[in-house]
Amino acid sequence: MRPRFYVPDLDPAAERIPLPDDEAEHLARVLRLGAGAEVEIFDGRGGLWRANVVQAGKRAVHVKPGERVAAALEARIPIVLVPSVLKADKMDDVVRDAVMLGVTAIHPVLSERSEISLAALTRSHRTDRWRRIAVVSAKQCGRAVVPAILEPTTFDAYLAGGESVGGGKPLGLPGIRLLCVEPSAVEGRARSVHDVPAPSSAQVIVGPEGGWTPGEVVSAIANGAVPVSLGGRTLRADAVPLVALTAVLTIWRAM
Amino acid sequence: MRPRFYVPDLDPAAERIPLPDDEAEHLARVLRLGAGAEVEIFDGRGGLWRANVVQAGKRAVHVKPGERVAAALEARIPIVLVPSVLKADKMDDVVRDAVMLGVTAIHPVLSERSEISLAALTRSHRTDRWRRIAVVSAKQCGRAVVPAILEPTTFDAYLAGGESVGGGKPLGLPGIRLLCVEPSAVEGRARSVHDVPAPSSAQVIVGPEGGWTPGEVVSAIANGAVPVSLGGRTLRADAVPLVALTAVLTIWRAM
Repeated sequence: MRPRFYVPDLDPAAERIPLPDDEAEHLARVLRLGAGAEVEIFDGRGGLWRANVVQAGKRAVHVKPGERVAAALEARIPIVLVPSVLKADKMDDVVRDAVMLGVTAIHPVLSERSEISLAALTRSHRTDRWRRIAVVSAKQCGRAVVPAILEPTTFDAYLAGGESVGGGKPLGLPGIRLLCVEPSAVEGRARSVHDVPAPSSAQVIVGPEGGWTPGEVVSAIANGAVPVSLGGRTLRADAVPLVALTAVLTIWRAM
Repeated sequence: MRPRFYVPDLDPAAERIPLPDDEAEHLARVLRLGAGAEVEIFDGRGGLWRANVVQAGKRAVHVKPGERVAAALEARIPIVLVPSVLKADKMDDVVRDAVMLGVTAIHPVLSERSEISLAALTRSHRTDRWRRIAVVSAKQCGRAVVPAILEPTTFDAYLAGGESVGGGKPLGLPGIRLLCVEPSAVEGRARSVHDVPAPSSAQVIVGPEGGWTPGEVVSAIANGAVPVSLGGRTLRADAVPLVALTAVLTIWRAM
């Protein structure tokens, strides 16, 4: 497979396209490719093209786009993963795996039992890190779409309509909201994913290591979320996104 | 939740039951429980009982079994995971997650692109390690069944009928064999998991980091394996077991 580079919003009709700094460095310093090398470039929105390196210098790398090629199939139903923020490494894995499974976006939320504050999240530039992971994962799984990583927000704010914490515009994410719960959390009120008909789009909401508080479950249901359970065993928090996404994509034949 | 201890083949009618050494140490030294403490004990075959500590000394811990209680639900279709051995940490995760998802057994195989030899596997006591991980994962997910970790074998030996490498008796695992492949591996011959009707039991076979060799795919199909693909994107090798098990358990309503 040709090495693949991410060039947001590239113009495939251009004669020469400069690579972003980090991609240029990867091409020239890590892979040690030079002029003439055959690569692929993608725009993060589904477009993937062959390209040739025309210049790879210390300061910049330019490529010339060639023919368009097919990328990996996208999931047939747009799904936004809404994960409660987990500890560092685990959250990195969640982002990587969700991209691999085909989500269109990830909207991290801070729930009551998340073990990190919004301030600490911001200070540690976690969102930037997750965005880089999303790019790497898209390359590895063959997608030409880089899912958006939305700014983290509190679970309450997300439920209320998703106004982003940074003061951005309300997100208004579309689709049915599925709240993943343990069977014991809602006293038999959780549906099986089999009983949720394929929607036009969906948000899959996953709790933190310690689970949802009873108040959060009540609040989510009051805001239209459908509680769903994923079988009879207790799943690790960092495995739930992968299991939940696989289950709904399978049931809805959208994988 | 009461702390839970694994006592293989325990007799619930006994007055006093000694815990195995590692479980006794966990109870007395790690959790610092003493006489009178309320715990649960399980036999690894589905039985789970309340119990009280009657003696917790330096040398031994004894408990008295009480009433039987319900454990987490088992998967409704017995599934054996047949994973190609991955690098150390990743394989540990595969074992942990497969137990959590409800497999009845795990039969590790060495395929051509596995990056470890049978000799190295044996020397490093990996099977013992996986067995310990299976016990821990069973406790965490609430199962009272500890899945068997079978002795690793070569993929060829497994296909030929599963004679174990240590010279044990042929395993003769039951059920349909599903070979997880990338769509590109079999030129359109892979089925979707949707097209595999629920069997009475199944073996789910997963390749190593570098994928199957063409010869392995041919050989597996010749030995009755059904190639199945898991959607349009390239999945990480260590995520495939989790995704494949979730997909078939979901499709077969067996989760």
